[in-house]
Amino acid sequence: MSNSGVEKLKAAIRDVPDFPKQGIIFRDITPILSDPLLLNTAIEVLVEPYRNVKVDKIIGIESRGFIFAPPIAMRLGAGFVPIRKMGKLPAETIHHSYDLEYGSATMEMHKDAVSPGERVILIDDLIATGGSAAAAIEMIRKLGGEVIGASFLVELHFLNGRAKLPDIPVHTHIVY
Amino acid sequence: MSNSGVEKLKAAIRDVPDFPKQGIIFRDITPILSDPLLLNTAIEVLVEPYRNVKVDKIIGIESRGFIFAPPIAMRLGAGFVPIRKMGKLPAETIHHSYDLEYGSATMEMHKDAVSPGERVILIDDLIATGGSAAAAIEMIRKLGGEVIGASFLVELHFLNGRAKLPDIPVHTHIVY
Repeated sequence: MSNSGVEKLKAAIRDVPDFPKQGIIFRDITPILSDPLLLNTAIEVLVEPYRNVKVDKIIGIESRGFIFAPPIAMRLGAGFVPIRKMGKLPAETIHHSYDLEYGSATMEMHKDAVSPGERVILIDDLIATGGSAAAAIEMIRKLGGEVIGASFLVELHFLNGRAKLPDIPVHTHIVY
Repeated sequence: MSNSGVEKLKAAIRDVPDFPKQGIIFRDITPILSDPLLLNTAIEVLVEPYRNVKVDKIIGIESRGFIFAPPIAMRLGAGFVPIRKMGKLPAETIHHSYDLEYGSATMEMHKDAVSPGERVILIDDLIATGGSAAAAIEMIRKLGGEVIGASFLVELHFLNGRAKLPDIPVHTHIVY
């Protein structure tokens, strides 16, 4: 993807001050999603690092990871697997908890969603502290999946989420 | 879409008894999502009624509506707009509440997500009682959008959700 594509995406992001709380600038990607050309560009940007790579499953983290992961799966000829908040998936699951600023969160994944040896890519719209991504990778590996990469449209670099994903290639495109 | 496509999709749905509670059969679509061919078939089936129709926005309801709506938007050259649970969208919103079996739920949408006169299609994976779909249509219309259709992969016919969407074309494909 050319730099101009990424620049157009970055220009479209809406900065919302003091959301979800005082002092935080929320990077709102909905203006990218609502524009057909920018939506296409975002998918192209996220797919780019994996164009010539064999991939079995694209994993998206609820909820915003569900937006990008299925179109990427379709481009790469892979299946889509949702990782959800606890209590939403009906069949047999594994789960993993991770720390939040206050308290903790638990995510869940179907046991049969990834088979041993399958090559998977993790997708989310944004990496902040990296807690949910690290939990996702932990679960994928527990099922025997090989995590060949993680791709995020936006990175909040100052939160150093990459430090939680030390041993996989991480691709990010718009960095704050 | 041929009937055989829909039959393959239906055959792939996993029935999970007693989820989320005793006596309910949960229709689990994750086996469709995780299979590249079936995922493509599902999108084709959902797109089919709108192939020759001018559409500006495809609206998906959090969370599972986020899975199908973006690929459909990309196929139809439209933008994608998320309707979210209360408190998740950062900019100016409108909201609408609807009744659940016990209590109520509130959904939210950005005020600038749909412009007056835009033609929109509502997408979700499944229509049950129709409460969330009716709330979504209410909000879209409040913003001046013209709802030209609603498309659901699965319909729980015995819950009669269509009765809540009396004045728009509703397309469903796998009916229980």
